[in-house]
Amino acid sequence: MGDQVGQAVEGTLYYIPYAEFQRIRALDLPREQRASIFADMCRLNALYMIARAGSGHIGSSFSSLDILSWLLLEEMRPEDIFFSSKGHDAPGYYSSLIGMGKLDIDLIHKLRKIDGLPGHPDIGTPCIVTNTGSLGMGVSKAKGMILANRLCKRSGRVFVLTGDGELQEGQFWESLVSAVNFGLNEITVIIDHNKLQSDTFVKNVSDLGDLAAKLRTFGWRVERCDGNDIGALAATLASLHDEIRPKIIIADTIKGKGVSFMEHTSLDSDVAMYRFHSGAPDASSYRLAAQEIVDRLRQQIAGAGATALTFETIEREATAPPPATAQRLIPAYTQALLAQAKNHPNLVALDADLILDTGLIPFREKFPDRFFECGIAEQDMVSVAGGMALNGLLPIVHSFACFLSARPNEQIYNNATEKTKIIYVGSLAGVLPGGPGHSHQAVRDISTLAAIPGMTLVEPCCEAEVGLLLNWCVDEAPGSCYLRLVSLPWSIPYQLPSDYRPAFGRGLTLRDGSDALIIAAGPVMLSTAIEVAEALEQSHQRSIKVVNLPWLNQVDAGWLQQAIGDCRQVYCLGNHYVTGGQGDLVARTVAQWSDRRPVVTCLGVDDIPPSGTNPEVLGACALDTQSVLRAIAARF
Amino acid sequence: MGDQVGQAVEGTLYYIPYAEFQRIRALDLPREQRASIFADMCRLNALYMIARAGSGHIGSSFSSLDILSWLLLEEMRPEDIFFSSKGHDAPGYYSSLIGMGKLDIDLIHKLRKIDGLPGHPDIGTPCIVTNTGSLGMGVSKAKGMILANRLCKRSGRVFVLTGDGELQEGQFWESLVSAVNFGLNEITVIIDHNKLQSDTFVKNVSDLGDLAAKLRTFGWRVERCDGNDIGALAATLASLHDEIRPKIIIADTIKGKGVSFMEHTSLDSDVAMYRFHSGAPDASSYRLAAQEIVDRLRQQIAGAGATALTFETIEREATAPPPATAQRLIPAYTQALLAQAKNHPNLVALDADLILDTGLIPFREKFPDRFFECGIAEQDMVSVAGGMALNGLLPIVHSFACFLSARPNEQIYNNATEKTKIIYVGSLAGVLPGGPGHSHQAVRDISTLAAIPGMTLVEPCCEAEVGLLLNWCVDEAPGSCYLRLVSLPWSIPYQLPSDYRPAFGRGLTLRDGSDALIIAAGPVMLSTAIEVAEALEQSHQRSIKVVNLPWLNQVDAGWLQQAIGDCRQVYCLGNHYVTGGQGDLVARTVAQWSDRRPVVTCLGVDDIPPSGTNPEVLGACALDTQSVLRAIAARF
Repeated sequence: MGDQVGQAVEGTLYYIPYAEFQRIRALDLPREQRASIFADMCRLNALYMIARAGSGHIGSSFSSLDILSWLLLEEMRPEDIFFSSKGHDAPGYYSSLIGMGKLDIDLIHKLRKIDGLPGHPDIGTPCIVTNTGSLGMGVSKAKGMILANRLCKRSGRVFVLTGDGELQEGQFWESLVSAVNFGLNEITVIIDHNKLQSDTFVKNVSDLGDLAAKLRTFGWRVERCDGNDIGALAATLASLHDEIRPKIIIADTIKGKGVSFMEHTSLDSDVAMYRFHSGAPDASSYRLAAQEIVDRLRQQIAGAGATALTFETIEREATAPPPATAQRLIPAYTQALLAQAKNHPNLVALDADLILDTGLIPFREKFPDRFFECGIAEQDMVSVAGGMALNGLLPIVHSFACFLSARPNEQIYNNATEKTKIIYVGSLAGVLPGGPGHSHQAVRDISTLAAIPGMTLVEPCCEAEVGLLLNWCVDEAPGSCYLRLVSLPWSIPYQLPSDYRPAFGRGLTLRDGSDALIIAAGPVMLSTAIEVAEALEQSHQRSIKVVNLPWLNQVDAGWLQQAIGDCRQVYCLGNHYVTGGQGDLVARTVAQWSDRRPVVTCLGVDDIPPSGTNPEVLGACALDTQSVLRAIAARF
Repeated sequence: MGDQVGQAVEGTLYYIPYAEFQRIRALDLPREQRASIFADMCRLNALYMIARAGSGHIGSSFSSLDILSWLLLEEMRPEDIFFSSKGHDAPGYYSSLIGMGKLDIDLIHKLRKIDGLPGHPDIGTPCIVTNTGSLGMGVSKAKGMILANRLCKRSGRVFVLTGDGELQEGQFWESLVSAVNFGLNEITVIIDHNKLQSDTFVKNVSDLGDLAAKLRTFGWRVERCDGNDIGALAATLASLHDEIRPKIIIADTIKGKGVSFMEHTSLDSDVAMYRFHSGAPDASSYRLAAQEIVDRLRQQIAGAGATALTFETIEREATAPPPATAQRLIPAYTQALLAQAKNHPNLVALDADLILDTGLIPFREKFPDRFFECGIAEQDMVSVAGGMALNGLLPIVHSFACFLSARPNEQIYNNATEKTKIIYVGSLAGVLPGGPGHSHQAVRDISTLAAIPGMTLVEPCCEAEVGLLLNWCVDEAPGSCYLRLVSLPWSIPYQLPSDYRPAFGRGLTLRDGSDALIIAAGPVMLSTAIEVAEALEQSHQRSIKVVNLPWLNQVDAGWLQQAIGDCRQVYCLGNHYVTGGQGDLVARTVAQWSDRRPVVTCLGVDDIPPSGTNPEVLGACALDTQSVLRAIAARF
């Protein structure tokens, strides 16, 4: 069914079938030339995967594909292993594994789908040797693999690809030292030095300085080459074969390499935002990009004297945009923050390289002196905030909830013991979006923070509540707070009363009922709760009350008793692991009452959530409307 | 009452009253000479404080006192601030603050006592500007303070003292970068480079390499001098006054400086264990040390032409050793680990510079190839373990519970998502010992780990149960485990049946009863429970059942129902914050029963615990026998 592609058509997606990879790998060509063709074939397939999935990381998939292709085709022996520490480049790596015949070509259609290819690498996928996606762990993992090999008298080298923004993580530097002390020459780290991290140029965020000199002082052998020049890379790798120290290659690459308008070198200025770090290209960008790769492949194949490539095509499914009525908590947060910043000159915002996702760009523009970009260095950021708070500022600290609640966990506690006031804002909270997978699904953040004395955890259920809760944190909270934000646009079947003001430890009834009560927080779970309540009323003639309890680790026992009223069943619905979630708070409170105690059941995540589409992931966690409905109906 | 000291007497403790510090500070002497005398006076007082408290860090207090004295006496201006990032040297810093008249001399008697001077610095103490004791946060905190100063148009420099072992923490390196990018020339970091970390020489644990070269590549101005030579230090500081970059002084010092046999340079070999890192000197060592400092002070004062110093004396209170019957979980763990290591050739042990405290020395001796000292680098250690587990080893990862459960929290979760098996062993768990203070009191470890799918948390209540639970973790657990160990020797009023074997999720009745049930884990809480039960039987004629539930995040609901039986009251007694502790597990389980539900009350820590003696801290947390008894009796 393969076809040759002349002019790419908008709305059509193109990929290269496995048979073509077999053919090209078998061509009798100079090795570098063959690897270069292979890399571009992988680029087209990675682009296909990301376009079809609706999200993924093009920029770093493209920057690293020449490196990956050479490693897989020529450098690695059977006993060697490779993994990407940053993990963002998964589509690129998947496409190269597919090209090598190590992953089934059918998986190309299932990026970020359940039982397909996760958004970040997971060892459930063949040839993926370790889970990555939270940064800075790669060299440590590689050391462990090698130490195990040595103890078991196995040989084998480990190639670790890292990002350059990733080098801001302290663990990277922490991990360099013992590699030298242990003499682990089996490690080769290749830094995909594409100069950009998530938001902008690495040098703007946290300049690495003379990287080679720095790394050499840690005792590693360091070489530098053009990572998109396969010949140069091959020569550099060859020059390291007899080196007895652990090795680092700084591979200078171009983010988005291979599609002119996606290459970071096409940016107008070095303060511009790069548009192809994550997300999917629109139809027009896709067509232009595919065309450029296809045209270059045609030339390369012709130059090699081989038969032209054939492609498979598929019509791009229209991904329905979120409905116009969907609420967006991040822009609401931006507005609320700007308003508070006007009132409080001591309010400052700190960010860990997620300025776009955390909604801070308008803050930075309006209050440049009060914005602090800390880079991918969450521990440093949190302790910097601690120092600021000690000296009179009100720091608001931003990152994804998964990172913020875990990586700097001890630093947050240290700050808390000083009883200063700091507001932590964790976005991308909860099990959705499902695509990025478990490294990014924050379903443990309540548990890791709730026990900290003086710290109040809150989660808004809609745009209107975002500002109300931020105001409470800034103006009323006695101590530090954690504001948990779902980032996904979400259609919300309820509305807060116009005079609603959050009252500490107390919830708000969104829907009345007398047979059972569902308690939840946040837009995803409360929407499910409302839908379940309405369905149960129709199907089982049960009257279900739904309460929004935006307080995650504090509840007013008197209010709770009243809210429960005559309901004999209470369900706590958590966008979080059951253990340590809001339900534990409710259960602990109810369990100490001596009478009129309802049955409390906690529903939530109870295993590592999969990567998949949002409905797939909700279903797998039994948090979709049907599953919750069944769980509740079973108890009537 | 002051006295001159000829021959120090064994059993007597000596300290220098404040008036003598005033006199010496006012002497018209060369500044370096005066600071040197001041430093030795502080050494004697620090030694007094530690001997009286029964624990503290002599080695790093002594190595740093020449630096502290010069800073406080001569270098610092009123707007400048100083803090120690490592915090171990608190007795040294306290004694210098006392000598400066900034802390009341009466506090000299109250090191590690409640309302006295905490084991590690806390801002509740005058002149302490930030809480330290968990390592690596200092430069970050300083940056935050300076950024706040700048925003508020305040001037002032920040001097941060760090350890050299502390430089193994990734956060230190993470924090260096933005100090340069932000141009924070107000910071001067002084590395107390005394060559030893907790267990042994830094170079043996994780060689720092050419430290100055390394630091310079990060863009800092770096100087190096003899940190026990006050003249050299003063000159180095003076040379940096106009430097526009952030500054680091590598101060080469001698650990234990000022008492010949405590100086690390007196060690026979560079693999010897250093004995004066923490803990208190015995009576004879104290006498010899005091004598040496007193003799040198006599010479120095005479050389300065001043009147001889007078001293205050006090008889050293005999600190009762733990009773012979006290059980010690760490040695029991050592034995159990050795036995398991014989059975499992793939079992390896990893340590983060606490080999003595985690009981690993015999393991290292017996299985040198299977022991991995990772240094003060918990994140790296945990990810190394992850790599090892992926390649077939069974890693057992050791540190203090406070650090292990928080610093590498995201790395533990990352490992868990790979569904390999790793055993984490957290010692020094719980609120005791009370002396070190909140940085070391692990009362949050259950909450930060319990939600991780596949991870089982267990805590043994006596020596016999240590091995049984370790065996369960190694031989029976389906996934990763966390073994929570109380380190303090503890007298235990119960005994396990000789045929006892832990059964997953099920507890063991230690004492029968029918009116109420106390559920707990670990030696401290279960001893309290037994004492409370016996007292309540006598005073209130109530029959109280006590159950040891060594499972912290898993309970067998059927067993629990049976164990509760007819008891209408259940108390969960936690050596942990109430939130996220074992009680939440019990409450959540009981709350979903539809009938025969007892009242469940969780008792535990609910605010940042203080530093103090063990009885003081238990009392402050309302976890002593009398407080628990009152809490329970009030509910009858």
